[in-house]
Amino acid sequence: MKYYLKNLVEANKSKQSRRFALFIQFLIILSVITFSIETLPDLKPQTRVVLNSIEAFCVLIFTFEYLARIYVADNKLRFIFSFFGIIDFLAILPFYLTFGIDLRSLRLLRMFRLFRLFKLVRYNKAMKHFASAMMVAKEQIILFMIITLMLIYFAAVGIYYFENEAQPEYFSSIFDSLWWSIVTLTTVGYGDVYPITVGGRIFTFFILLIGLGIVAIPTGIISSSLTKAIEPHSEDE
Amino acid sequence: MKYYLKNLVEANKSKQSRRFALFIQFLIILSVITFSIETLPDLKPQTRVVLNSIEAFCVLIFTFEYLARIYVADNKLRFIFSFFGIIDFLAILPFYLTFGIDLRSLRLLRMFRLFRLFKLVRYNKAMKHFASAMMVAKEQIILFMIITLMLIYFAAVGIYYFENEAQPEYFSSIFDSLWWSIVTLTTVGYGDVYPITVGGRIFTFFILLIGLGIVAIPTGIISSSLTKAIEPHSEDE
Amino acid sequence: MKYYLKNLVEANKSKQSRRFALFIQFLIILSVITFSIETLPDLKPQTRVVLNSIEAFCVLIFTFEYLARIYVADNKLRFIFSFFGIIDFLAILPFYLTFGIDLRSLRLLRMFRLFRLFKLVRYNKAMKHFASAMMVAKEQIILFMIITLMLIYFAAVGIYYFENEAQPEYFSSIFDSLWWSIVTLTTVGYGDVYPITVGGRIFTFFILLIGLGIVAIPTGIISSSLTKAIEPHSEDE
Amino acid sequence: MKYYLKNLVEANKSKQSRRFALFIQFLIILSVITFSIETLPDLKPQTRVVLNSIEAFCVLIFTFEYLARIYVADNKLRFIFSFFGIIDFLAILPFYLTFGIDLRSLRLLRMFRLFRLFKLVRYNKAMKHFASAMMVAKEQIILFMIITLMLIYFAAVGIYYFENEAQPEYFSSIFDSLWWSIVTLTTVGYGDVYPITVGGRIFTFFILLIGLGIVAIPTGIISSSLTKAIEPHSEDE
Repeated sequence: MKYYLKNLVEANKSKQSRRFALFIQFLIILSVITFSIETLPDLKPQTRVVLNSIEAFCVLIFTFEYLARIYVADNKLRFIFSFFGIIDFLAILPFYLTFGIDLRSLRLLRMFRLFRLFKLVRYNKAMKHFASAMMVAKEQIILFMIITLMLIYFAAVGIYYFENEAQPEYFSSIFDSLWWSIVTLTTVGYGDVYPITVGGRIFTFFILLIGLGIVAIPTGIISSSLTKAIEPHSEDE
Repeated sequence: MKYYLKNLVEANKSKQSRRFALFIQFLIILSVITFSIETLPDLKPQTRVVLNSIEAFCVLIFTFEYLARIYVADNKLRFIFSFFGIIDFLAILPFYLTFGIDLRSLRLLRMFRLFRLFKLVRYNKAMKHFASAMMVAKEQIILFMIITLMLIYFAAVGIYYFENEAQPEYFSSIFDSLWWSIVTLTTVGYGDVYPITVGGRIFTFFILLIGLGIVAIPTGIISSSLTKAIEPHSEDE
Repeated sequence: MKYYLKNLVEANKSKQSRRFALFIQFLIILSVITFSIETLPDLKPQTRVVLNSIEAFCVLIFTFEYLARIYVADNKLRFIFSFFGIIDFLAILPFYLTFGIDLRSLRLLRMFRLFRLFKLVRYNKAMKHFASAMMVAKEQIILFMIITLMLIYFAAVGIYYFENEAQPEYFSSIFDSLWWSIVTLTTVGYGDVYPITVGGRIFTFFILLIGLGIVAIPTGIISSSLTKAIEPHSEDE
Repeated sequence: MKYYLKNLVEANKSKQSRRFALFIQFLIILSVITFSIETLPDLKPQTRVVLNSIEAFCVLIFTFEYLARIYVADNKLRFIFSFFGIIDFLAILPFYLTFGIDLRSLRLLRMFRLFRLFKLVRYNKAMKHFASAMMVAKEQIILFMIITLMLIYFAAVGIYYFENEAQPEYFSSIFDSLWWSIVTLTTVGYGDVYPITVGGRIFTFFILLIGLGIVAIPTGIISSSLTKAIEPHSEDE
């Protein structure tokens, strides 16, 4: 029995284990879709009942999977406190916690259900590549993240001094100006706040000319380290 | 006769076949322009007659080309069910289907006329490069497309929890928040929806800092694999 | 005398010729600034007189330079019909043409004065690099420009079918939809037109996911060929 | 005593000097946060007192550090006029200058307090990489900055001629059009100004197709030279 379970839940090439993995992945996607639909306003009570049933079924399977994984693990404590052990636990925790509690206060708790998406990492090569690539370039990314943050801060201070008097409602403090700064330097440009004074526009002109190159660096590092991670042959050149 | 036709329609270096190819390309562009002009509101009846005549002429030639290609093909069935055989058939189908049908219900059918643009692929080296480059990098693109979709989904869930109460008309559900999420993470930033709460703005701040690098990865993979595909000498380095 | 002039106007290392080149560059920048100031509304008549005097002075020197270059050229006709010969001629032509003509109709003619900026190419290494890099990658840029245009066109057709009924004032024809298409796929996103139907938003979602990678290709080709052109040592690796 | 101070303020591997460096970095961040909070409107008088006390404390320590660095320097004059000597001086100057001066006129002076952020460079490897990478690519960046500026100027002139009559309030002169030009070509696209005429839109279409590749070049150069600067092993390949 234990051998059969071990064969089932642990990733290997047997037919059953692959079917089980696909089934779990399907349930993860299903419960995420259920979670999304639940946020729709004006849901009919019947729909809500269906959604809750699906949710209960998913949690049931996930609980079975979690217990089975503990049962078959050679070192049970190590599995429980491993990354995937904690993820598996957090994926079912919110359901059991919300029994009999008022639904209003549960908003944040329900969000924990999304930890289930991390369960997909176990089956996903791309996510593993992503995680390992981030580890390799970690130091560089942090260093240039700091430069980017300093530039965004400088831009916010500059625009505050130029626009504060003309638009006190949008540039009331450096914290408000930071919003303009991030939206502009990432080139999102919603258009909710923008400079209207001549000085502020000239400042934006130079900040954009200089800043785009700098803001693009962390993006470039992540992209290039990921591209390298998925091209193993390029490393032994 | 069959030999002459074969010489004409199949891509080779003879003068006639090149002229015929250019003529077909010209008709494709012409019929696409005709298609675009037909969507203009308040067209005069005379203009409509001219447009319909051009369309009928194009279809006539395309039909002749299609039949000629079947006639000269060594294996007729294989041509009919090949990629270009199907494209050639779909390019003329809508015209014959719409005889005597009410024009209102034809909207979607008329769109099939755009399949003619794919006929250009036969003559276009760039499109072939594009298709082959996409094939090579297919697996990577799909893997990081999934990561990108997961990030967009996380951003949507996050903004939903921050902005739902403040702006229930724009962030009424996770599906509505997904719209904000894609528009922001691709840096399009229309400005129709944007966070107004402090929490939502800080969340956007971090999502933009982290997310732009990740969203840029599929873009980077497509770009680099295409650049490689058009630089054959870079592969034997 | 001819020898002295030749020494002056033709690019060499002598002190006088370098001073003359700097003086001409200064006049080009000055006349461009003058041109910009002239577009300001509500200029005082005195300011206009000053601007016209500067303009007349610049044209005087440019005319002298043009005649001197013809005079010193070994093959006068070849210089006149060379790229720089034509640019030098176009730079002074508008001034002489506008004597005694009504000022209203001159708008477009005055724009020709900007050809003077091309005179800077003669002195600017970067512009020469740019021009030569564009020549090398010309074929690739054109090929992917065509793919980009086809994608923009497909996006326009798609959004037209989704949004035409909901927003007939913004998506009245495919030509209007093309405006949305270019603004969205280049991620400018002014926010003057955007989809509001569910279908249109889902279509935008997929077009953005797929399209950004493709639209970035011509940009990437220009960037990489230019970066190569300014790094000669990277070519002999 | 002098030996002890030298050990403390100059960067070396001793425990005390590292603790002192961390302490100074903490004060720099603290004074920047204080500076940001001071810009908040409607601060209570008590809060202001607390902020001023923190500011006074920071300046006290910075003054001690500055004097200590002069004291331990072998060549005192050379330190005072070195980059970091001037930065250290400018970081404390505004505080002493503002004693007894009316607070209204101090706006710009207070901004000098941000020079303290540059003090972080002394401790930050990334900033040194950044500075050295900028030095290496300085010439190229300037050259393509000029091309970018010329393109932005051409775009502004073009849109001025197309949109000036239709929207004289937004495109009143070339200087106003430059604002549109920089916001569009960097793809920020606030949506405060955009073309509405057919001519202006077609012009924007082509400027975006051509211009994005060129504007991306300085960005690309900065990114690539920085990526190289942080990957020393890639240079000896």
